[in-house]
Amino acid sequence: MNGNIVAPSILPGFMELLPADQMLFNKMLDTIRFTYEKYGFIPIDTPMIEKSEILLAKSGGETEKQVYRFSKGDNDLSLRFDLTVPLARYVAQHYNELTFPFRRYHIGKVFRGERPQKGRFREFYQCDIDIVGSESLSVINDAEILSVIYSTFKALGFQSFTIRINNRKILNGFFSWLGVENKTEVLRTIDKMEKIGEQNTARELEALGLSAGVAQEIIRLTKIKGKGDEIVESLKGMKVENEEFSTGLEELSQVCSYIGYFGIPEDNFSVDLTIARGLDYYTGTVYETVLNDYPSIGSVCSGGRYDNLAQNYTNKKLPGVGISIGLTRLFYQLREAKIVEPYGRSTPTKLLVIPMPDAMNYCLDISTRARENGIPTEVYFNEGRMGKKLAYADKLGIPFVVVVGEDEIKTGLFKLKNMKTGEQETLSLEEIIEKLKLV
Amino acid sequence: MNGNIVAPSILPGFMELLPADQMLFNKMLDTIRFTYEKYGFIPIDTPMIEKSEILLAKSGGETEKQVYRFSKGDNDLSLRFDLTVPLARYVAQHYNELTFPFRRYHIGKVFRGERPQKGRFREFYQCDIDIVGSESLSVINDAEILSVIYSTFKALGFQSFTIRINNRKILNGFFSWLGVENKTEVLRTIDKMEKIGEQNTARELEALGLSAGVAQEIIRLTKIKGKGDEIVESLKGMKVENEEFSTGLEELSQVCSYIGYFGIPEDNFSVDLTIARGLDYYTGTVYETVLNDYPSIGSVCSGGRYDNLAQNYTNKKLPGVGISIGLTRLFYQLREAKIVEPYGRSTPTKLLVIPMPDAMNYCLDISTRARENGIPTEVYFNEGRMGKKLAYADKLGIPFVVVVGEDEIKTGLFKLKNMKTGEQETLSLEEIIEKLKLV
Repeated sequence: MNGNIVAPSILPGFMELLPADQMLFNKMLDTIRFTYEKYGFIPIDTPMIEKSEILLAKSGGETEKQVYRFSKGDNDLSLRFDLTVPLARYVAQHYNELTFPFRRYHIGKVFRGERPQKGRFREFYQCDIDIVGSESLSVINDAEILSVIYSTFKALGFQSFTIRINNRKILNGFFSWLGVENKTEVLRTIDKMEKIGEQNTARELEALGLSAGVAQEIIRLTKIKGKGDEIVESLKGMKVENEEFSTGLEELSQVCSYIGYFGIPEDNFSVDLTIARGLDYYTGTVYETVLNDYPSIGSVCSGGRYDNLAQNYTNKKLPGVGISIGLTRLFYQLREAKIVEPYGRSTPTKLLVIPMPDAMNYCLDISTRARENGIPTEVYFNEGRMGKKLAYADKLGIPFVVVVGEDEIKTGLFKLKNMKTGEQETLSLEEIIEKLKLV
Repeated sequence: MNGNIVAPSILPGFMELLPADQMLFNKMLDTIRFTYEKYGFIPIDTPMIEKSEILLAKSGGETEKQVYRFSKGDNDLSLRFDLTVPLARYVAQHYNELTFPFRRYHIGKVFRGERPQKGRFREFYQCDIDIVGSESLSVINDAEILSVIYSTFKALGFQSFTIRINNRKILNGFFSWLGVENKTEVLRTIDKMEKIGEQNTARELEALGLSAGVAQEIIRLTKIKGKGDEIVESLKGMKVENEEFSTGLEELSQVCSYIGYFGIPEDNFSVDLTIARGLDYYTGTVYETVLNDYPSIGSVCSGGRYDNLAQNYTNKKLPGVGISIGLTRLFYQLREAKIVEPYGRSTPTKLLVIPMPDAMNYCLDISTRARENGIPTEVYFNEGRMGKKLAYADKLGIPFVVVVGEDEIKTGLFKLKNMKTGEQETLSLEEIIEKLKLV
């Protein structure tokens, strides 16, 4: 025995799953990926380690504190903390080799050394899509992003969710019209309104230096409710004389007009004038997605339109629109709330072949043929009691088992045991293969 | 314009691909993954950042120098440098929740701060499988690993490759029988024989303190050639009286006897007594895989059997066998040698729908239906000349295009243009969907 044993553990704030959960997690990841690909988003994969001067070209404050930054040799390095900064660098660096609009998806881990707390992770998957134009990008793309969000959450098995949108230009233009100067702070306050309530919002707005009248005007705007086109009509009726407001209203109106053609049901969509999204680089449409039965989870998919993706790396104007799903956090929350559960399998294996004495070679041959037909198959190699072998299938959730001995070899017929129901069916190998292909 | 532009670039020694290459890379990664899953290997995903005391529990020397190690708060952290150490920690940590034999695959990036040189990467994908037993693990698993390697390289499209195996016990036992003491160094020398030649090997062995006679005995052993069972017979005929040698010979004999039943053709398999693999934790079967037409690439898939996976983290005895494909390096080499080429597509999109004026809504509807049938579809949103729109499809390698205008909307018939051949076919939407499902 070894004297120097280090107790095995991982760092707090990192997610590691057991096989059944990992299978579920991967299934969700694959669903997101295949949905993104159905919309023609192109995969990219960037280094997890980049030069600090690149990753931190823009940021400051909170982000910078959270970054894992270190040196190796003469290099000042950082682990990426999101997938947007690497996208900006990628597009600027490879501009001449890319075709625009550049529709990319990126699924990968990012790192933030946050203070560990329940449901917050220091290493987590982001699943991002962005459509980046050169010089300009049609507002139809903003509507298509809605369609991708809708298809993704449908494909993940959710029914009752709402994608809420707003347009930053409407809020900004309205603020300008009212003579508000510290728009970013006002935006942040509005963004919290759902949480803190109307009265506290009014108080905070006044604390920011707004008159009680202006604060009320703002709150009145954000309280306009109705279907998308109704809200558009109400906003038009306000006769706000501000160009940015008008542009934003026109964009919102267009997005609303397309959603039906993208196949998005009205129930899954709403315009919500309180949505601002904290990040200051959004300049047009902004998105949030909530699971209606679990509002406490907060937004499960957010993003927005920006005017200029890569201004830290190029003089080219690159407007775009994109969203992100933080899958690690979402998975944790869904599991905690028991909204998703592992589907009872801890292995991809569909068929376990158990050899009786002297049947090993025959079993290997069978398993090769099953695999050639795309069926994940294992042969049980260990010796021992039959009970132990069946328990192996049971523990892993392998759905089907065949025990192969002299009789089976002679007749070419096998008793396929359904481990869930206990039922047995006598079938040829070809029949087993055909059956399991459909499982 | 912005005054503070940072020139966009990545660090040397990191791979970043343009879309066409990324599509190819991902296809290879998926092929490996699906092959691993067909054999019932279970996915795991461990943190990229772990405690240094865990990752560096065993290693020293070269590995330790290459590790990206840093601190954050009070934590001494490292980026993982392989997937084997995290596996050992995972199995030890979750021992009571896993089912043994534990068959796991892990595909992910690892990090090594090597001196940058052509074809060596500091961040690269490893694609690992291991079968880990509790207390014991049948040697049939060693044969199955061969089968996985064979199926994987076949699935990747290779025909002419050879999986070479040896058994460490044969070499070790033989060295013991000859009275050799510094076996590890002798093993390392033998491992280089193919590169440095027989004479240099003899010289190096003598420099290690072996007599000329013993050096010749060792070289004579490693030169035994033939089919697997012929080599086994030759080795039996040597009448080496050493238990370890006999055990190794018995294991090798068993592995050779199974390969036919696993469907591995003789041409893709050989026993090569020079193979030792540098890593000192291998204790039985060792594997190397070479592409016969490109021997200079070296081994593209290697691994072996070990007695005790996790002795740094547990007293439990966990024997196992596994292999690894270093996909980043392999991809680089295959591309350099033009053995693989991007397959002409820079996007998952199969169908581009181009709307004529006033046809946008109809096109959105068509695209939604195509996607619902699993066909990656895009609508071209930008205004402009038709030539530019077709050029977009062309540059991305989108295989099919339909232009939709008044006529198409009226008749429900579309001219599906094959962008490769230039041919057009007039089809209904249902026919287009059926056709593209098969592409």
